Amino acid sequence: MLEGLELLAEHGCFGGQQRFYRHASAQIGLPMRFGLFVPPQPRALLVYLAGLTCSEETFAIKAGAQRLAAELGLALLTPDTSPRGAGVMGEADSWDFGVAAGFYLDASAQPWAQHWRMESYLLHELLPGVQKELGLSAQSTGLFGHSMGGHGALTLALRHPGSFRSVSAFAPVCAPMQCPWGQKAFAGYLGANHAAHAAHDASALMLSQTRPPFPAGILIDQGLADPFLATQLMPEAFEAACLAAGQDLTLRRHAGYDHGYYFIASFVNDHLRHHAAHLLA
Amino acid sequence: MLEGLELLAEHGCFGGQQRFYRHASAQIGLPMRFGLFVPPQPRALLVYLAGLTCSEETFAIKAGAQRLAAELGLALLTPDTSPRGAGVMGEADSWDFGVAAGFYLDASAQPWAQHWRMESYLLHELLPGVQKELGLSAQSTGLFGHSMGGHGALTLALRHPGSFRSVSAFAPVCAPMQCPWGQKAFAGYLGANHAAHAAHDASALMLSQTRPPFPAGILIDQGLADPFLATQLMPEAFEAACLAAGQDLTLRRHAGYDHGYYFIASFVNDHLRHHAAHLLA
Repeated sequence: MLEGLELLAEHGCFGGQQRFYRHASAQIGLPMRFGLFVPPQPRALLVYLAGLTCSEETFAIKAGAQRLAAELGLALLTPDTSPRGAGVMGEADSWDFGVAAGFYLDASAQPWAQHWRMESYLLHELLPGVQKELGLSAQSTGLFGHSMGGHGALTLALRHPGSFRSVSAFAPVCAPMQCPWGQKAFAGYLGANHAAHAAHDASALMLSQTRPPFPAGILIDQGLADPFLATQLMPEAFEAACLAAGQDLTLRRHAGYDHGYYFIASFVNDHLRHHAAHLLA
Repeated sequence: MLEGLELLAEHGCFGGQQRFYRHASAQIGLPMRFGLFVPPQPRALLVYLAGLTCSEETFAIKAGAQRLAAELGLALLTPDTSPRGAGVMGEADSWDFGVAAGFYLDASAQPWAQHWRMESYLLHELLPGVQKELGLSAQSTGLFGHSMGGHGALTLALRHPGSFRSVSAFAPVCAPMQCPWGQKAFAGYLGANHAAHAAHDASALMLSQTRPPFPAGILIDQGLADPFLATQLMPEAFEAACLAAGQDLTLRRHAGYDHGYYFIASFVNDHLRHHAAHLLA
């Protein structure tokens, strides 16, 4: 199903396998890597989108999610965070733009539009390929992510109704049109197109809903010792948008937790259970 | 207690804190770093010795041990794997000798003897300092480790009766006198001194015991897909030595598991429970 699929590594892990693959992505036009934790008995698929500077390995290595995922029967798909090796001038000059900073959208501006097609890659290539491999459907697929990947989770879930049954996020970039990371990314990838920006801004997207898109609720965890909270993440914007849209949101603010994977690990089991409750119902 | 102690980082983690420190080590004669997970209510201390190429961060990031440690009340101390910054010629030329390869012993051969004093550092400086800080004694202290650190755990526990109440290991180097890693390290750090080598070889040490040193038993987990199993680790040598010494050993061999942290994460909870059963009894 996935063109040129190669198994790069396979590690025994909680009775299942933590695998890493490479394949020739038609959407991206380059080889792409992804991680896949396969529990002993896969019953549902949970896609995790990582943050700036991360890769397909980060969550697999650092989040400690496989133990409960094995028990619940959740396969964990961890895509990479951008194309790599495109050779676009300046692609690796910034830690918050270009390589490892794809923002889970299809770029329309040059020189990014040819390869930076993460949204089409995920929705139309990687996800269907893995779903088919595991024999699972959108009804059994959930989406979550962290920071830039939390933005990805919220926006892709809102932009593709029916593709994901459950959604959650850790410290997501909630209002990219209002924060430096998002403004830089959107200007670079989408140009000066306000409507295109709004179509990839979780809070703007939620405000535009005519009915609550996730009746079962959205879960967000946010650390209060997170240095990016006020300037980049702005969960209050998404909270207000959910309120306006009638969308049930559980936004938990945790004193003493920062932006890193010790925070994610501390609460990841709650996210797995949130998704399992919907995906395995 | 520890000279020049600096808190480098502190992360909220499962209701406790994952901390990283630096201090001016008198034994090593250089700054040393260590990690310390402090659970909400520390009741015992578990020291983890990491393997070749690792640091004080590796176990904290990759093993996923903090969740159960928080629940059980186990503080987790993760020392670094060697001195760093000594400036000894060639210290970083090999991945299996020198920097990040201290083998948890005091070197007697030049040019290593001045700084490579990991055994004295751990037993006479770091461990007492942390025990005092936490208000815990040797009766509440256990020791475990991985690979080179499994060698460290078994040998230090055997060489220092009464310093550790419980001991376990993941894929330990069990017979360093018989394997390339150990032969290189012992020749380099200890010179051509057979008696000194034997005094740091877990299997030789166990064979020399006049009564079982750990009546409550030793736990070892070993993956059967571990590429180092036959040539470097040799658990059968330690198994035979335990049999000869009358030492109770639970040596579990796991099909499909390799030498890495996905293996460790899969079984770390069993180790925490093994130690807790003895330390909290």
